Amino acid sequence: MRYLTAGESHGEALVGIVEGMPAGVPVTPADIDEHLSRRWLGYGRGGRAKVERDQVRVLGGIRFSHTMGSPVALLLPNAAYEKDRAGWPETMAVMGDGDGVERVTLPRPGHADLVGAQKYGFDRPPHGPDVRPVIDRSSARETAMRVACCSVARQMLRALGIEVGSHVVRLGEVGLDDPAGWAEDRDALLAEGGARALYEKADQSEVRMLGDALSERAIEHIKAAKKAGDTLGGVYEVVATGVPVGLGSYAQGDRRLDGRLAQAILSIQAQKAVEVGDGWLAGRRPGSEVHDPITRDGDRWGRESNHAGGVEGGISNGQPLVVRGTMKPIPTLIKPLGTADLATGEAQPTRYERSDVTSVPAASTVAEATVAWEIAVALLERYGGDTFGALRERVEADRERGF
Amino acid sequence: MRYLTAGESHGEALVGIVEGMPAGVPVTPADIDEHLSRRWLGYGRGGRAKVERDQVRVLGGIRFSHTMGSPVALLLPNAAYEKDRAGWPETMAVMGDGDGVERVTLPRPGHADLVGAQKYGFDRPPHGPDVRPVIDRSSARETAMRVACCSVARQMLRALGIEVGSHVVRLGEVGLDDPAGWAEDRDALLAEGGARALYEKADQSEVRMLGDALSERAIEHIKAAKKAGDTLGGVYEVVATGVPVGLGSYAQGDRRLDGRLAQAILSIQAQKAVEVGDGWLAGRRPGSEVHDPITRDGDRWGRESNHAGGVEGGISNGQPLVVRGTMKPIPTLIKPLGTADLATGEAQPTRYERSDVTSVPAASTVAEATVAWEIAVALLERYGGDTFGALRERVEADRERGF
Amino acid sequence: MRYLTAGESHGEALVGIVEGMPAGVPVTPADIDEHLSRRWLGYGRGGRAKVERDQVRVLGGIRFSHTMGSPVALLLPNAAYEKDRAGWPETMAVMGDGDGVERVTLPRPGHADLVGAQKYGFDRPPHGPDVRPVIDRSSARETAMRVACCSVARQMLRALGIEVGSHVVRLGEVGLDDPAGWAEDRDALLAEGGARALYEKADQSEVRMLGDALSERAIEHIKAAKKAGDTLGGVYEVVATGVPVGLGSYAQGDRRLDGRLAQAILSIQAQKAVEVGDGWLAGRRPGSEVHDPITRDGDRWGRESNHAGGVEGGISNGQPLVVRGTMKPIPTLIKPLGTADLATGEAQPTRYERSDVTSVPAASTVAEATVAWEIAVALLERYGGDTFGALRERVEADRERGF
Amino acid sequence: MRYLTAGESHGEALVGIVEGMPAGVPVTPADIDEHLSRRWLGYGRGGRAKVERDQVRVLGGIRFSHTMGSPVALLLPNAAYEKDRAGWPETMAVMGDGDGVERVTLPRPGHADLVGAQKYGFDRPPHGPDVRPVIDRSSARETAMRVACCSVARQMLRALGIEVGSHVVRLGEVGLDDPAGWAEDRDALLAEGGARALYEKADQSEVRMLGDALSERAIEHIKAAKKAGDTLGGVYEVVATGVPVGLGSYAQGDRRLDGRLAQAILSIQAQKAVEVGDGWLAGRRPGSEVHDPITRDGDRWGRESNHAGGVEGGISNGQPLVVRGTMKPIPTLIKPLGTADLATGEAQPTRYERSDVTSVPAASTVAEATVAWEIAVALLERYGGDTFGALRERVEADRERGF
Repeated sequence: MRYLTAGESHGEALVGIVEGMPAGVPVTPADIDEHLSRRWLGYGRGGRAKVERDQVRVLGGIRFSHTMGSPVALLLPNAAYEKDRAGWPETMAVMGDGDGVERVTLPRPGHADLVGAQKYGFDRPPHGPDVRPVIDRSSARETAMRVACCSVARQMLRALGIEVGSHVVRLGEVGLDDPAGWAEDRDALLAEGGARALYEKADQSEVRMLGDALSERAIEHIKAAKKAGDTLGGVYEVVATGVPVGLGSYAQGDRRLDGRLAQAILSIQAQKAVEVGDGWLAGRRPGSEVHDPITRDGDRWGRESNHAGGVEGGISNGQPLVVRGTMKPIPTLIKPLGTADLATGEAQPTRYERSDVTSVPAASTVAEATVAWEIAVALLERYGGDTFGALRERVEADRERGF
Repeated sequence: MRYLTAGESHGEALVGIVEGMPAGVPVTPADIDEHLSRRWLGYGRGGRAKVERDQVRVLGGIRFSHTMGSPVALLLPNAAYEKDRAGWPETMAVMGDGDGVERVTLPRPGHADLVGAQKYGFDRPPHGPDVRPVIDRSSARETAMRVACCSVARQMLRALGIEVGSHVVRLGEVGLDDPAGWAEDRDALLAEGGARALYEKADQSEVRMLGDALSERAIEHIKAAKKAGDTLGGVYEVVATGVPVGLGSYAQGDRRLDGRLAQAILSIQAQKAVEVGDGWLAGRRPGSEVHDPITRDGDRWGRESNHAGGVEGGISNGQPLVVRGTMKPIPTLIKPLGTADLATGEAQPTRYERSDVTSVPAASTVAEATVAWEIAVALLERYGGDTFGALRERVEADRERGF
Repeated sequence: MRYLTAGESHGEALVGIVEGMPAGVPVTPADIDEHLSRRWLGYGRGGRAKVERDQVRVLGGIRFSHTMGSPVALLLPNAAYEKDRAGWPETMAVMGDGDGVERVTLPRPGHADLVGAQKYGFDRPPHGPDVRPVIDRSSARETAMRVACCSVARQMLRALGIEVGSHVVRLGEVGLDDPAGWAEDRDALLAEGGARALYEKADQSEVRMLGDALSERAIEHIKAAKKAGDTLGGVYEVVATGVPVGLGSYAQGDRRLDGRLAQAILSIQAQKAVEVGDGWLAGRRPGSEVHDPITRDGDRWGRESNHAGGVEGGISNGQPLVVRGTMKPIPTLIKPLGTADLATGEAQPTRYERSDVTSVPAASTVAEATVAWEIAVALLERYGGDTFGALRERVEADRERGF
Repeated sequence: MRYLTAGESHGEALVGIVEGMPAGVPVTPADIDEHLSRRWLGYGRGGRAKVERDQVRVLGGIRFSHTMGSPVALLLPNAAYEKDRAGWPETMAVMGDGDGVERVTLPRPGHADLVGAQKYGFDRPPHGPDVRPVIDRSSARETAMRVACCSVARQMLRALGIEVGSHVVRLGEVGLDDPAGWAEDRDALLAEGGARALYEKADQSEVRMLGDALSERAIEHIKAAKKAGDTLGGVYEVVATGVPVGLGSYAQGDRRLDGRLAQAILSIQAQKAVEVGDGWLAGRRPGSEVHDPITRDGDRWGRESNHAGGVEGGISNGQPLVVRGTMKPIPTLIKPLGTADLATGEAQPTRYERSDVTSVPAASTVAEATVAWEIAVALLERYGGDTFGALRERVEADRERGF
């Protein structure tokens, strides 16, 4: 199973193709849109959010609300393209030579602007200096299509009783470090309705945090940052429930499920850290507090605790998968940062640009999507399955054995 | 470029193949052995370490001390196989039906034992219950061959002036969280001799830490843990210097260099977290303290700081690459943990086994290797190069342009 | 470099994404359309051809007539979807449950119909019996997007002086077996204007054959087959000129250029054989007539002949690449073939359907495209190249050395 | 599932790693050796054959005669390395600078010698001129390890009732073109004992041909060629029986089973053509003679004929898989061919070298191996299967449904 996304943030549309899905998986555009709309969650998001509310068009691979085994083709028109009166059809013209189109020559620190221009030759003639191509593809707008693609796989998981959810555990200075601090609340939700109950609860908070007090403090923190012309990062936790035992492998380094989850998180723009289970706290604690004693109840194997975050030896162990990601603050600040002009070499401050204060709540929903994708890939490796029916039978047969 | 490793920890040998190296890269078995011997660094390592000091045999791909473009074949005999008088040739016999060989039926928490047995059918007849196959392949012994394979690529980097080094920044409760705490010392070493100076300095400490006081405190901590029958994890930092601008890409999620580095770290046994640059601290700090202002000096682009850890937009930016990994404590404790017997289902404590207190110093050298590999892969994507000569020319041409 | 296509032949559109192209490659939609229109070449093609004349829409990855390093997104609306009055929007509806839509239950021999239905579960409830999903994706209509995707790479080759062309050498009983029979004519064209001159000349024939007499005989043969309610296959030859020495490798089986070209040909619907150079005639002739003596003229290496078809040891040798593909006759015959109904199990003859007599001329242009793709992939492996500028420099440096 | 081979033909050993095999597959070194010994079949093979009779050493991944899910590591020592008194340990020395070792500067036409040297820089200083590295890796000796690796997968197929066999159908001028000529004999064997009966029968002929008269004529032809100082190529047919319906896919070009089989054949040294089913004859015959009418007998689907060679729409259809490969004559002729010296540029004839007249019988057994591999890969895609037990259950469940 593989997918590719394409499209620029101010181009006509984003496009995605998901290849290798079993046939017979129930998916509708509305299912995908539901995941897409959650990508707009979050207090402190700028006005642009409303404009871009996405509705996916399925151009292939789904018929009568089920996959066909054929590649799924997805299209997300960019609302801004025609509506912004900003001349995007000219600025992003596929044809012509771009005569008269203004070039962007001031690379923004913390973005791909400078390195992207250097890599792809937009730092110099004949195609530069102009960082526009870099800005447009490296933008987090791309994650809309990423979410759409991963959501197809996520619906397959859902139909198998595997759910992926998330909540934000830190926004700048507000939040907790130790999962023990929120484990009780989280685990009550998981027990009640799996990771779906977790994300639905989190969605009720403007910052996707569990607990009203925490949410309120975070919102205050965002307001203060906004006032200061500054931005905020944070930490979120992604949890997957219903994951069968046996996904991933220790047999070769690149098959470890935790390694793939780590890539899944850091493949998202602006993420700087990823932890599984106790994560970096596992580096501080003695072994006697980190490992999860094995239990057996009848013919069911279990664990007394879940410090491992559901992965041992690179393989899912039947406990909830727990992965946390850290996102850096948005680099587009109202307070200018130092940079230099690609055309002239002169030092200049970055230009004022409207921006959100934080997009951690949104990023947490993108992380759900990429985590779901990796679970789905590992699932098909273990179970195969050209059809959803066969896949479900095989997963259920394992579950009956306690997996 | 790709590699595969094979072999069990108590089997006859480990085997590795590295495919896709350019021809003409200077590499000798001694170069590889040097990296392998560093894998045995660390205070508090058990007696086994001395037995296993590894010398690689090159069976293909290298002639007259240079690669030939052909796959490089590596062999590491397992010293323990014949010498331990523990009957490994019988226990790990390739042939026969294993009659009379004792089965291991007590899975150890925190290891792959139980999940591996479940995944591969060693939890039940006909091939189980017996977790021996799992223990033997999921063991960290495999990293010896991983280091050997990655070292071939690392020698290519070295010949291009790209070095990878590491140091330990935390062992259990002893250590620092904020890179600012060690940045001065580290950067002085990097300025002096690149990441090689860094690792050579760290190698002088029994715990691979910078600073005598820190090392001493860490050793005391290890001693105390040993006395308590406990084990310790920790955090290490891997740094790469000389990395050209432009490796990795934002164009597709799976091409981001930071995502690949994250996988490289979490593909190593027992690693639970990975951070790039400021890492999880970037989630707490305001944007104005996290982004690195861009500078220009003549025709050279630079950054005022390196909070990003050398990667912007998934692409190397010419600053040192900085990645930190967190390792959990060794799960083989003297203090027993609860488990249950696969054969009988009865709850039992784990058996006493000799073990190190910590292997964080060793893991840090393995992480150097896997990071080096990912840099090499990204380098060949940008520069191609069937021959080392062509590769060097292309890298140097870029460097002349300030990349 | 990789690409994916998606979309059904009676769905709304075909979609393609090309990932990994260097930036700065000159490509316009018109360039792609030119290659697409050649896919409609051929005497004896049914009326449908005119309806489907394709114009690609570029939705990403190209700006101001050049690639940006970002993935290239392509869209081909299916003209038939709305215009045929055949109710395709209902038949291929993404949503709903398909109530009232007629199912196709008679699998056609020689098509994917039966095996595809069995593989993907369309042979039985709940999603079958209904072979429509199989018909729609396995159709050769998909090759339109394949050609579009490969044409992006092909334009890169063109800008480097590498051309790919083809001509038909057999249609049913009309044609020659031994390349010696057409080598003189072909090589004169190659000498004149490379493989482009070859394909432009072939395009002037309704059957894409070199030589008026041969074309006329072939057309007569098509007419006779049509009258007989039968169909015809054939053989075409793809030639690439300007290919540098050194693409592909013997170092590992899956890196051989000839192996990849073979897959490129047999990845196209209805192709049954592929030959490189002398191909199957090399199995009959003595070694003294098959191998190409090596020559040296100044510092240029050459070959006295090109029986090898431009590949030795899995590597391009600087001679024209010569690959022939064999296509089977179209399986949709006017004469019915025996089959059985998926719903009832009753034996039935296939239904009358309009069809072309042959699509070998069209297939030959698709084969050009897939061959071009493989050359481009191998080229980037050798030369790397995030930018077209760097790629061109490196290729030219090699050419100056006689490669 | 993937594998890599390494090692030079005059180096110490060949090495292979097979990654991704399910656990519990019955395989012993003797099983692999049996396939390896068949690689030495063939009249007219030189004396070297006897020296090199191979016995594989399994260094990992197999215990108690079954796979463990871990990578399988294979080693084949090169008998010639130490015994030939030809100084190979010095000539192929891993270390040192090769001072005093004779360089090979005369590239042989029809081999990888010249292109390999150009690609990897062995055509010039500092590492050339010396084609030894190219000769040693591009040699067909590598296929010994290829066969060993593929044999591991082949044993999995065998345990599932899937067999792969072959026979030679042409040697130079002796043989038949149309499968109809041998179909009766072949199909009788297949009916009797599947493809295993086919290969066992062919193995009884010194040239692996069916029919004494044909074999005798071929041997006479070989004798005549030897006398003339010439060499012969030929054509072989590989057949697989017991292959379930549904392997491969039309959903994306690179997933077609026939495309992968084509690559499997042309990934073998010296192969120039590949055909599936009727192959190139399908280009000559009218559609009414090429397609296989579909039949239904109770709930079993079948075909009246097998012109398709067991693949429709890129998917296995339950009929025997039939693939033919064409091998060119061995390029090492007693009659010299023209070439030029890499060091001096002077034209020279190739040197006299002992060689076989033909290795088509041997190549046919290698082709069995690579075909088996591709079937195994496609099988795991459909059925998944971390354990052989689960895989067998799933395959059998399909078979009960008539697949």
